[in-house]
Amino acid sequence: MFDLFGTLLDIASLRAAAGRHTTDPAALVATWREKQLGYAFAATIMQRYASFDELTERALEYALARHGVALDAAAFAALAQAWCRVEPYPEARAVLEELHARRIPCAVLTNGTRATAHAAMDAAGIGTLIDVTLSVDDVRAYKPDPRVYALATAHYETTADQLVFVTSNGWDATGAAEAGLRVAWCNRLGAPAETFGATPDWTFSTLAELPALVA
Amino acid sequence: MFDLFGTLLDIASLRAAAGRHTTDPAALVATWREKQLGYAFAATIMQRYASFDELTERALEYALARHGVALDAAAFAALAQAWCRVEPYPEARAVLEELHARRIPCAVLTNGTRATAHAAMDAAGIGTLIDVTLSVDDVRAYKPDPRVYALATAHYETTADQLVFVTSNGWDATGAAEAGLRVAWCNRLGAPAETFGATPDWTFSTLAELPALVA
Repeated sequence: MFDLFGTLLDIASLRAAAGRHTTDPAALVATWREKQLGYAFAATIMQRYASFDELTERALEYALARHGVALDAAAFAALAQAWCRVEPYPEARAVLEELHARRIPCAVLTNGTRATAHAAMDAAGIGTLIDVTLSVDDVRAYKPDPRVYALATAHYETTADQLVFVTSNGWDATGAAEAGLRVAWCNRLGAPAETFGATPDWTFSTLAELPALVA
Repeated sequence: MFDLFGTLLDIASLRAAAGRHTTDPAALVATWREKQLGYAFAATIMQRYASFDELTERALEYALARHGVALDAAAFAALAQAWCRVEPYPEARAVLEELHARRIPCAVLTNGTRATAHAAMDAAGIGTLIDVTLSVDDVRAYKPDPRVYALATAHYETTADQLVFVTSNGWDATGAAEAGLRVAWCNRLGAPAETFGATPDWTFSTLAELPALVA
């Protein structure tokens, strides 16, 4: 069970699309992502759900204002749509192919809408390697809400300890571990371990280390 | 009804205490605050409440690891305790004194524990100007959870639209507005307006503009 954006797909690849409109695309994308997550957390806590696609647009609007970038409606829509073409991490496809060859079912559990997740996975060439895409949209609450992780156990009709959840986000690793899943934290940036909540079972720096762990 | 940390009290003043242990106290305090808020959001969404004092310590532990600062137990405790001595913004006391003189009841609604909030307000010399301190600790969920803002209407036995909530945090302004309170956003850093959720009734850049708005 994989998180999608930031784990299989590299959000930093949005800088290419952002670079058409600003000289500092890294800063724009960082604000965009930070705000997108902030709105997802706030929407869940305020009990005022809005879809990932809508929050992505609201967060982009904020990020453009913060960085002083003005876009017309067409350019805005095109940039928001870049989430449907986020590039995979270099090792992602080979890892999924190896797990697929070993007949280990692979799924995605994402904050994204199913439509955007499917589009992005197809564009990245990994769509056929994923059995099922589970989206927070079905419970109208974002990770790390326990109802989200319960989608995984419900789909596979199994207990949480039979599933391995793979994510690059520390708070997502904590949330899944709190929900009882076995968790592999792909700590790409070498961040310190989270100090609040349940801890992941495995930590590594790229997905290439995953297949050896999955017996 | 005032938010405390970041609104009446200046979190950046923690840099003085942090500066005893690092050459870049601004970066350490920024990580510390960001993680403290992140853990508060995660704790609420995961339904695994821990007090502000505990999250402050966990976030400090993370921030020290991230910035490569090692502290012994006594130094760690002393730095965490600096939240009991966060300095007020320059205009905060005069504004509270003016409202007090006009017999407008002033209260605090804080993510902090009541003990830490009281200590910090007394150290800042504003404790006697605040009628009541309402803490998220009573509902075991952090802002922007609607149960937190409901503490204010319950205490004053009034409807939300009879209360003005003052905060410097954009997400706190949105949350309070979603809960039906009248909201004054003290946008000290000139941030863009939030683009998701209900909007505040007033926006200004320092608390000095508040008394003129409260008829």
